[in-house]
Amino acid sequence: MPQYTPPVRDTRFILDHVIGLDRYTNLPGFQNATPDTVGAVLSEGGRFVAEVLFPLNQIGDREGCTRHLDGSVTTPSGFKEAYRQLVEAGWLTLSGPEEFGGQGLPHVVMTAFEEFAISANMAFMMYPGLTAGAVAAILVKGSDEQKALYAPRMISGEWGGTMNLTEPQCGTDLGLIKARAEPQADGSYRITGTKIFISAGEHDLTENIIHLVLAKTPDAPDSVKGISLFIVPKFLVNADGSLGARNEVSCGSIEHKMGIHGNSTCVMNYDGATGYLVGEENKGLAAMFIMMNAARLGVGLQGLGVAEVAYQNAVAYAGDRRQGRALTGPAEPEQKADTLFVHPDVRRMLMESKALTEGLRALCLWAGLLVDLAHKAPSEEEREKADALVGLLTPVIKGFGTDMGYKIATDSQQVYGGHGYIVEWGMEQYVRDARIAMIYEGTNGVQAMDLVGRKLPSKGGAAIQALFAMIGEDVAAAKSGPNAALAQALGDSLSELQAATMWLMQNGFANPNNAGAGAVPYMHLMGIVIVGLMWLRMAQAAQAQLEAGEGDKAFLEAKLTTARFYFTRIAPRAVSLRKEIEGGSEALMALSPEAFARAA
Amino acid sequence: MPQYTPPVRDTRFILDHVIGLDRYTNLPGFQNATPDTVGAVLSEGGRFVAEVLFPLNQIGDREGCTRHLDGSVTTPSGFKEAYRQLVEAGWLTLSGPEEFGGQGLPHVVMTAFEEFAISANMAFMMYPGLTAGAVAAILVKGSDEQKALYAPRMISGEWGGTMNLTEPQCGTDLGLIKARAEPQADGSYRITGTKIFISAGEHDLTENIIHLVLAKTPDAPDSVKGISLFIVPKFLVNADGSLGARNEVSCGSIEHKMGIHGNSTCVMNYDGATGYLVGEENKGLAAMFIMMNAARLGVGLQGLGVAEVAYQNAVAYAGDRRQGRALTGPAEPEQKADTLFVHPDVRRMLMESKALTEGLRALCLWAGLLVDLAHKAPSEEEREKADALVGLLTPVIKGFGTDMGYKIATDSQQVYGGHGYIVEWGMEQYVRDARIAMIYEGTNGVQAMDLVGRKLPSKGGAAIQALFAMIGEDVAAAKSGPNAALAQALGDSLSELQAATMWLMQNGFANPNNAGAGAVPYMHLMGIVIVGLMWLRMAQAAQAQLEAGEGDKAFLEAKLTTARFYFTRIAPRAVSLRKEIEGGSEALMALSPEAFARAA
Repeated sequence: MPQYTPPVRDTRFILDHVIGLDRYTNLPGFQNATPDTVGAVLSEGGRFVAEVLFPLNQIGDREGCTRHLDGSVTTPSGFKEAYRQLVEAGWLTLSGPEEFGGQGLPHVVMTAFEEFAISANMAFMMYPGLTAGAVAAILVKGSDEQKALYAPRMISGEWGGTMNLTEPQCGTDLGLIKARAEPQADGSYRITGTKIFISAGEHDLTENIIHLVLAKTPDAPDSVKGISLFIVPKFLVNADGSLGARNEVSCGSIEHKMGIHGNSTCVMNYDGATGYLVGEENKGLAAMFIMMNAARLGVGLQGLGVAEVAYQNAVAYAGDRRQGRALTGPAEPEQKADTLFVHPDVRRMLMESKALTEGLRALCLWAGLLVDLAHKAPSEEEREKADALVGLLTPVIKGFGTDMGYKIATDSQQVYGGHGYIVEWGMEQYVRDARIAMIYEGTNGVQAMDLVGRKLPSKGGAAIQALFAMIGEDVAAAKSGPNAALAQALGDSLSELQAATMWLMQNGFANPNNAGAGAVPYMHLMGIVIVGLMWLRMAQAAQAQLEAGEGDKAFLEAKLTTARFYFTRIAPRAVSLRKEIEGGSEALMALSPEAFARAA
Repeated sequence: MPQYTPPVRDTRFILDHVIGLDRYTNLPGFQNATPDTVGAVLSEGGRFVAEVLFPLNQIGDREGCTRHLDGSVTTPSGFKEAYRQLVEAGWLTLSGPEEFGGQGLPHVVMTAFEEFAISANMAFMMYPGLTAGAVAAILVKGSDEQKALYAPRMISGEWGGTMNLTEPQCGTDLGLIKARAEPQADGSYRITGTKIFISAGEHDLTENIIHLVLAKTPDAPDSVKGISLFIVPKFLVNADGSLGARNEVSCGSIEHKMGIHGNSTCVMNYDGATGYLVGEENKGLAAMFIMMNAARLGVGLQGLGVAEVAYQNAVAYAGDRRQGRALTGPAEPEQKADTLFVHPDVRRMLMESKALTEGLRALCLWAGLLVDLAHKAPSEEEREKADALVGLLTPVIKGFGTDMGYKIATDSQQVYGGHGYIVEWGMEQYVRDARIAMIYEGTNGVQAMDLVGRKLPSKGGAAIQALFAMIGEDVAAAKSGPNAALAQALGDSLSELQAATMWLMQNGFANPNNAGAGAVPYMHLMGIVIVGLMWLRMAQAAQAQLEAGEGDKAFLEAKLTTARFYFTRIAPRAVSLRKEIEGGSEALMALSPEAFARAA
């Protein structure tokens, strides 16, 4: 029943006119990213996911995954065939390194494709998504032999990958890990333990699954400093790349979840499984963060992707459903009632969703470009600067992006009235699916602590100062032009963010609980300002095109209107968020745990 | 797996010390509401729902309702027996009028019991909840004969009741109703049409179901002014009260929904069913609003009830789960990790949930008292004043209350991390169940329009002016005492609300879309101020008890701390809400519907 159109026009506007891909043709891989190539990727990729993955989204939700008595797991009807087509068409290899069989296109182009694919079927796309996280760790921390053995078939999608961190007693606090890794004479390790919440832990899509597993060696320190990372293949891999014996790793059960039913969330049992150390012993946390950072940007993209498809359906419903009359008098007197579009409160939800999805799209694509720059920019200084900025943006994209994704999914469901609550209409699935993105890969509270506790103070606050300066330049540049009011509003939001940052620096130093208490509102405040920056840039780009007489006039004027909406109706939330942060931690930390309990 | 403790202590604090039930012993029915009686009702009623209804909550979600080929519907295992016990124990009759077999206790006492029962099992309590809405309409608009025939067995719970408004083409816009009512020679009507989303439309809990159905007579005006209300019993009722023939009304199907699986949501087919006019022809809308207003307060209570049980479980989990260390250094060095309580961001979610549930409880109970006063106060003036105030509060309790209920359920789920997403832990059910309360009985957007478009301007703004004056008096009274800072903060929020009200009056008159665009933020702004008023009153009451050396010191001091939290961390949101309202409707209404669509 739901529909999905890949928002190619909007994506191209951002890539071509806001980010300006053509400014980066000096970077490796960007030469190939000509407007024609990118256009073809988006059109053909978008068509593929809309035609092949999207029709399986409700089926996946309804059927879920099935674990059989032998521990094997079957994915929902159609998933296996769709995955085969996805691999064969080569969509997964777009930005993979050419030496391992990838197409070497910019990461930012892959990001655009991924958003479309997630909109089409979030649960399905988690299978290749987890593989991408696992392969990222191998490419950075693995030995040349490991890279050669595993990377090509993981990049192609022939093999899957997973990330095994969580255990029953340990989620965020990885120092509590109990999984053991005993060194063997041949240099391998025997891995023993139980991992839970392992997305794509077992399934029937690929002939092999390469698990990346955090475990502790016998003499390791009893903290996060004692964690090592291991490759544990489902089937051992011979030196020639052929599959060997079945390893001692199995799926003990799959979880019944609120959503993402199409993805298998597994309890994985390691019973003396053969594993291979990635990098050095006790340095697993750093390797894990490579996976996590890639994964966190991917989860932020899930927030956007689900929001986009939910929004599109709310728009379609608002145009179809007739109920009541415009407050200013009947808009279509010849009909029995006007469409939902005439109602300001329906508009409020649609405009918020439009402004936030388009803003988050620009932000996710910008971050995608920064990932490219962090790897490929000509100078070390540029690479470091891009890396620091993407580090700062990552928790905001994950945390703010998925909080907004849930809000947009919920608002889009709300537009449907009672029908939004009925399964067959498909809207409630988007809410249930969007919900997980706020939880996994580090809850949004953990993202906020990463932002405030780690990213803000890093290198004396260099990244945040650079961001402030950058926003200040954009504001200054726009202040004398036709978008002066928008620039002024962004400047106002920036002032709130700067004041809140100063407050956190001063009061978080005196009492770290002040930093913790303000972390989530600060993450939201920064999200509002950064999406505001995206809106100023989009407005400037639209203005320039309009003045040059280029582009689709109605589309560009809608950009300017949506920017105006963003700055008059959403950006003012910055004021209260700052006040909330400055409310501090006193009353928040004062009660004893017993005082929270109810008495009969 | 989840737990529930009826919050009797908190409820009694509100009834005894904030509302002060003993001040109303001059009212009919309040003489019997002695502290002992109320205490017994809350303790015994709370025990009943915790022991009998709560264990069926997850079962109801898992099993759902089943429609059989003959159109009959079976409720989940245990529901029928629990309902029998509920009726036999007399819990449903607490506040029913004595002339029809009720116990005549104040409505406010019933409200307290209902909150507990909803926390225990929201889907279950919808069966008697719908009956209560239906009987309210009969008691006010029905003939003496109808009252005598239907009310006693509906009040006892022996028979169920429903509200049949929605049709496939018409939800909010009741002018579009197609169901027909043809007058018969004997004074009855033949009802024909299809109604959808009929909660408790068919089930096995009661021997009869009395449907209240909106339909149009042949010559009725083609608008909401042409709607009439009919009683359509599942089994016709003979003059002596015995059951007669099966009526031509049947359940065509039941919906698959996001949540409240334990309640049957039915498509009801009326095929020339015998119906009896309630009140006058074409006056059905007024009768419908009697049902709706009672139902809306009940739905607000659902927001609170689900939030409370979700919060309680988040508190329990936060105390059990050990993960990470306090930012200020290990709180329990002898343990491998501290409990979640040490983390400020977990505290943020728990304190927000605590402050909002306790504030909403005070608000719902106050509204319950106002319903009593509207019916029973000695003077016409007092009755009218109470009625106007409850009219103003109703959309806020429904709209703000259920938006907060969903937020609290979501935050409470978030405290669980990954486990919150797993079905067996029970937290995700609360989110799914809470979601419907924002939609039915008029979406929260409709509530906001009712508030801004109807309740605000009613009688020249008398109700809102009275509310402002009342809050001003509370602020003035507290300003020189130990709660001066709280009073100041409430005064600040009130100023924002007053400014926003003025803006809406002026700009909504010039362009009604400004009123529509600001309606939901205004409803939230008013919610924040009114819950703030509740917190000032609770703080004043706690302070008085502490000064008198009465009550549980730790509980009362926690009240003062929570009040401080509310005013430093939640109340400041009023500032941004006002700015959002003042952002107006220009950018919000500017785009053509086509501009919302995505282009490939």
